[in-house]
Amino acid sequence: MFSIAIVGATGLVGHKLLKLLEKSKLKDFQLHLFASAKSKGQKMNFRKNEIEIKELNEKSFEGIDLAFFCAGSTISKKFIQYAKEAKTTVIDSSSAFRCLDDVPLVIPEINAHTITEKTSLIASPNCTTTILMMPLFELHRKFRIRRIVAATYQAASGGGIKLINKLLKETKEAIQNPNKIHHGFYYGFNLYLHETAQNPFRYSEEEAKMIFETRKILEDSEILVSATCVRVPVLRAHSIAANIEFHNDFTLEEIYEIVKKTPSVRILEDFPNRRFATPIDATGSFDTLCSRLRKDPFQPRTLDIWIVGDQLLKGAALNALQIAEIVINQKRGALCS
Amino acid sequence: MFSIAIVGATGLVGHKLLKLLEKSKLKDFQLHLFASAKSKGQKMNFRKNEIEIKELNEKSFEGIDLAFFCAGSTISKKFIQYAKEAKTTVIDSSSAFRCLDDVPLVIPEINAHTITEKTSLIASPNCTTTILMMPLFELHRKFRIRRIVAATYQAASGGGIKLINKLLKETKEAIQNPNKIHHGFYYGFNLYLHETAQNPFRYSEEEAKMIFETRKILEDSEILVSATCVRVPVLRAHSIAANIEFHNDFTLEEIYEIVKKTPSVRILEDFPNRRFATPIDATGSFDTLCSRLRKDPFQPRTLDIWIVGDQLLKGAALNALQIAEIVINQKRGALCS
Repeated sequence: MFSIAIVGATGLVGHKLLKLLEKSKLKDFQLHLFASAKSKGQKMNFRKNEIEIKELNEKSFEGIDLAFFCAGSTISKKFIQYAKEAKTTVIDSSSAFRCLDDVPLVIPEINAHTITEKTSLIASPNCTTTILMMPLFELHRKFRIRRIVAATYQAASGGGIKLINKLLKETKEAIQNPNKIHHGFYYGFNLYLHETAQNPFRYSEEEAKMIFETRKILEDSEILVSATCVRVPVLRAHSIAANIEFHNDFTLEEIYEIVKKTPSVRILEDFPNRRFATPIDATGSFDTLCSRLRKDPFQPRTLDIWIVGDQLLKGAALNALQIAEIVINQKRGALCS
Repeated sequence: MFSIAIVGATGLVGHKLLKLLEKSKLKDFQLHLFASAKSKGQKMNFRKNEIEIKELNEKSFEGIDLAFFCAGSTISKKFIQYAKEAKTTVIDSSSAFRCLDDVPLVIPEINAHTITEKTSLIASPNCTTTILMMPLFELHRKFRIRRIVAATYQAASGGGIKLINKLLKETKEAIQNPNKIHHGFYYGFNLYLHETAQNPFRYSEEEAKMIFETRKILEDSEILVSATCVRVPVLRAHSIAANIEFHNDFTLEEIYEIVKKTPSVRILEDFPNRRFATPIDATGSFDTLCSRLRKDPFQPRTLDIWIVGDQLLKGAALNALQIAEIVINQKRGALCS
């Protein structure tokens, strides 16, 4: 029987993946759950079965056909080699191998063609980049993107359960004791620039990912990206304000026509009532939402767009599952009913 | 004796102005407080005196030398005419008259020279625009701004006490009942695009203000501005992610040299610890903070900058008070000790 593993099953993305897998069309497979020593022996429900969590080790991948890695790049860097030795196909949600030439970086709606029967490791992109790409890739095909200026509004879910708990705890504190001042990375009614390390050009890792991954996914190394990544006190779903300059001119009607037909993308806008997509609207949605499509007031060939997507779904677990479905279809069509 | 009035004394900006006035160097003046009928007869403390709030009417300005209008543009549009008839000099924090050619739009550090002895009405700019201008005006003088792409992270204080209460109430609700889904302008761990009306170009009023006011304040009608204005669940202090293209080239060293010398601006950045300005850092600060000054990775002559300023202080009450100090100095130097 086909064997699937989730590495990092107790994390926010791993757990969401388990839930998606449960409701998916995939059947007739064995599921193995791996996590760190501290979760060993715990059980998680899956389609009326209880599955015991095992501690991840070098031998975990024997007999596993497909493994999802959702435990961060340190774990991916350490353990994916053992999965490779065991001939396990890996879908890695971390940034560990995204920049390698022979590792496809896949959003299935955009570049499923980069997965071949020989592919043994597939990277799922950074959540913010994925959400940014969704309403843009068909526009890129038609008008070709020259430059993107993006500012992000990233939710706590992007930092896992730990960051969600920090947001809840510090918000409660701020409500109870509004006069106490907290500096630094305080999250109660406060926001801060993405805390990943800065490169010599003073771009944070998160921002640098948006540059590199956009180019790789859209297969256009000339796209210019300026990004500012910010963590806002929102629970789940990332938002992006983007100003997109194209090489070719467009009308707003053409933009709507294309975005409306773009798979897994939905326009949510109600100009008379000034109602546009919010993180709550996107929470739980498989679609990426976009709003307030408008021409830049001064610069030709340039579009302003507001994009919101569920960080845990299309930004992470859902995209990984979609990749798995492609891989499994290639490996054995029969598994998909 | 010189007479000063605050119209909208019970509002967030009016109240903050009262507190600033209390601590200011201004002395030997009478203070009158005006508000709507529902606050009539209430008393507010000012320098050990109690001042009774009067209901605003057409006759309120008799004998008033200087009036601050902090009650929104509807009140300004209705009552500033009576102040004019009474020869009261008006400092208006609303947007009502900002676009008139003969009304100076003033940030004292930038364009105090536009106030003359004949000026009877001075507008204080939109809070977001003021905060954006502060670290940029000296750079504009040196390198000349060609284009600004800005995304804002605006605090609840920008919508007054009502919006702060909405944020607190809906956040408490969201903590107590996390599974209840609210759409629309829900503010508990959620954000939304600025709710002001959209013009035919699909720019909200708030965004349109940033375009018009930037040009007026910097006295350069060729500056291009693309803006997306967003309300985030932060209590006070607005943040802006801005990408600024200049006409002339610069080095980062030159930028630092100029920004460090810019009055009322402070650079808050600690690259090794990834600590940059947050809304809490800016809360209560008279200075506008800026962080992460960096060259755009691809576009020449372009700067990325993160700006945070107290919406209630430099964004509103403090700027109005600074304007008043200029006016009063012109009228009677003796008032300023």
